[in-house]
Amino acid sequence: MDTGTDTPDQEKPRDEDAYELDRRQVAAILEAVEIADQQKLVELMEPLHAADIADLLEQIDSEDRSRLIHLYGREFDGEILSELDEGIREEVIRQLNPEVLAEAVRELDSDDVVDLIEYLEETEQEAILEALDDADRVAVEQSLTYPEGSAGRLMQREVVMAPEHWTVGEVIDFMRNSDELPDQFYHVVLVDPRLHPVGNVTLGRIMAARRDVRLADLAEDTFQVIPADQDEEDVAYAFNQYHLISAPVVDAEGRLVGVITIDDAMIVLDEGHEEDILRLAGVGEESSLSDTVAETTRQRLPWLAVNLATAILASLVISIFEDTIASVVALAVLMPIVASMGGNAGTQSLTVAVRALATRDLTGSNLGRVIRREVVVGLANGLVFAVVMGLVGYVWFGLPMLGLVIAAAMVVNLVVAGLAGTGIPVLLEKAGVDPALASGTFVTTVTDVVGFFAFLGLASVFLL
Amino acid sequence: MDTGTDTPDQEKPRDEDAYELDRRQVAAILEAVEIADQQKLVELMEPLHAADIADLLEQIDSEDRSRLIHLYGREFDGEILSELDEGIREEVIRQLNPEVLAEAVRELDSDDVVDLIEYLEETEQEAILEALDDADRVAVEQSLTYPEGSAGRLMQREVVMAPEHWTVGEVIDFMRNSDELPDQFYHVVLVDPRLHPVGNVTLGRIMAARRDVRLADLAEDTFQVIPADQDEEDVAYAFNQYHLISAPVVDAEGRLVGVITIDDAMIVLDEGHEEDILRLAGVGEESSLSDTVAETTRQRLPWLAVNLATAILASLVISIFEDTIASVVALAVLMPIVASMGGNAGTQSLTVAVRALATRDLTGSNLGRVIRREVVVGLANGLVFAVVMGLVGYVWFGLPMLGLVIAAAMVVNLVVAGLAGTGIPVLLEKAGVDPALASGTFVTTVTDVVGFFAFLGLASVFLL
Repeated sequence: MDTGTDTPDQEKPRDEDAYELDRRQVAAILEAVEIADQQKLVELMEPLHAADIADLLEQIDSEDRSRLIHLYGREFDGEILSELDEGIREEVIRQLNPEVLAEAVRELDSDDVVDLIEYLEETEQEAILEALDDADRVAVEQSLTYPEGSAGRLMQREVVMAPEHWTVGEVIDFMRNSDELPDQFYHVVLVDPRLHPVGNVTLGRIMAARRDVRLADLAEDTFQVIPADQDEEDVAYAFNQYHLISAPVVDAEGRLVGVITIDDAMIVLDEGHEEDILRLAGVGEESSLSDTVAETTRQRLPWLAVNLATAILASLVISIFEDTIASVVALAVLMPIVASMGGNAGTQSLTVAVRALATRDLTGSNLGRVIRREVVVGLANGLVFAVVMGLVGYVWFGLPMLGLVIAAAMVVNLVVAGLAGTGIPVLLEKAGVDPALASGTFVTTVTDVVGFFAFLGLASVFLL
Repeated sequence: MDTGTDTPDQEKPRDEDAYELDRRQVAAILEAVEIADQQKLVELMEPLHAADIADLLEQIDSEDRSRLIHLYGREFDGEILSELDEGIREEVIRQLNPEVLAEAVRELDSDDVVDLIEYLEETEQEAILEALDDADRVAVEQSLTYPEGSAGRLMQREVVMAPEHWTVGEVIDFMRNSDELPDQFYHVVLVDPRLHPVGNVTLGRIMAARRDVRLADLAEDTFQVIPADQDEEDVAYAFNQYHLISAPVVDAEGRLVGVITIDDAMIVLDEGHEEDILRLAGVGEESSLSDTVAETTRQRLPWLAVNLATAILASLVISIFEDTIASVVALAVLMPIVASMGGNAGTQSLTVAVRALATRDLTGSNLGRVIRREVVVGLANGLVFAVVMGLVGYVWFGLPMLGLVIAAAMVVNLVVAGLAGTGIPVLLEKAGVDPALASGTFVTTVTDVVGFFAFLGLASVFLL
């Protein structure tokens, strides 16, 4: 939605679907594609932001997408490619005419080109690299020498820097005479003669100062330097924690090699959140809404297989008590309740723990206190539901002892849920395994096994 | 970690705990508090960033926190207050000496003050408002007239604007002569004579242009105006979708009333993600690691209660088949597997659907296709696990018909899981209920009930 200077449009109230792609607009575009009306298509697409066009391409089916791209024709905004999901992006790149692709890529900053090509196949990668100017190609190739998922891949090479002794007037004159400034920049990085960054000056402060003021006197108090080999998730954390807008990136010798801006950090942060949510649910973290049935089935199957294995483990526990169940069938009716409550309480604890580990709020300094809290909360809620289920068990089946057995099992399982829900993610993190990925399975296995064992075990002792 | 010009520090490799509060540092600070060594405490706290001090205060216990604040004494950076979790923030505000609090708040931009006081009790709110200058107080009070969670609450009132006909030279002179520029700003907003924003010029472009260039010629192509009553989640979405750095906010008449910057949008985005994850797990979305046992128990109990009700519903289904179970106890052993697989597959589908709704990737244009995909994926995975469980059931209990029954129930339940996992979030969203909050319970209730009913029902027909 590029509203331009079209102010009247801004005055209408936005509803809760603000910014959602308008279904009628999508329909109109698909109709233009259907009747192969190129002029109409261009007219409808013209006012859309690259990010919205990317969303549109993701939401229509593969056949419509291909026809739209061919009809749209001779120009293709490189930014649309940057905004596309990876799977769809490769598909679109393969369909674009080589000259159109080259033109699209030439407009982009080096970090966007890196992002675009880093996961492409080698021949496609080379086709794009060849389309770039020599200087840009070298910049992109250098970025690609840093490991995947590192700050070096995320940074743009275009940096506005100034010697630390320069004044406001000198840097303004320098910028006015430079014809290769980056699209977006927010700071001038001050460097010493060895190219080590020594300060960051926001453009706002430069503009508010007189020409003879030294840049060094305007530098920000807080100044974060990012090593090029730092993990991109750490970079995103630093931007979020310290409210950075841009930060200089340095190589192993501490020399300035690039700059990371907040939009890149925000994308990493967003992807990290997405991955956490999807991992917690046992969905492949690379999954997207535009994946095919085959891809989706393949992504989900392993987690269902792990779940099956743990479910069979729980069944083995039940099978130990087959005789007990045969004599008191009420146990079969009630046993899923104990397991389900434990699983739920465990999921609550583990979600809080996994989040706190991701945001670095759960550390050695407060781990003991947090575990104690979770166990006491499990005990408190366990006692509440013990009373409830004790009464339900007694009233439903008329067996007071059954009420006592389920009450005791409930307390045991909710305490274990608090302990496992916090302890397991912490142990996984220490072992170098992503707690978001694996905690859920372990925790529910523990609560299922403990739940069935406590309930049926107590029943076999006190009810037979 | 304010590294200042301390370059050697930047050259050491960062490990995976980059940016995590150092446990020894926390211990040293607590020791200084213990022995009431004020000078040592100030010395240890001095190099820390406000965000890290806030984390520190959140991670230590309430008693240490209170002693630290009293010892730290006469100065307190307002930014630390902004960074604190709400519960702890109120506690700290109550403990600060009124003059120290007034001084801390006076340094902040109006949006930070609004964020600080909007949820405080009225008397505390007034104490802080009185500490402000008249102009700042009016700005904060006006922001508070906008609804909670709206763009009006998020924006800062300090805007750098210029008439649309100004040149680069005019705006630079204006800024040099202004002594009340905001701390952080990235754009100059161009306005018409009625104060309607008509364009946004980045500082970088202004600095790169000659003094006689008209600002209007430098305005960005993409220009988003945010209505003051827009929901903050929509604002965050717009910043993320369109890679905005700052955007002007307008009142109902379209007049410029403030500006929202990306750091505010990023906080909203972050909180939104946090809430989604916590809601999906049935944990109160306001929960934090520093909540007490009583608060935590209260937050989690309602969701456990809802889960208990749905678990009892599933038990009622089982109780219909008590006689069947009494004659074939193997059913009791295997039935949790069918329910568990359905619950897992349903959670996978619903997580994908809830995320896609939140990111506005699931719309009327692709809903049909997504539901079809989920159902087919459910069928495919259902067939795979039907074969596996059919064999397990047969081998384990030696009953071929039991294998067929569990296989059929598995297929039915995984197809239903795909359908319910996508359909329920979409229906909840249409009904105006947050799908992250309620979907999980509905979906697992459906898969439990259908799983037990299909498995035990088929068994009662074919096994007896």
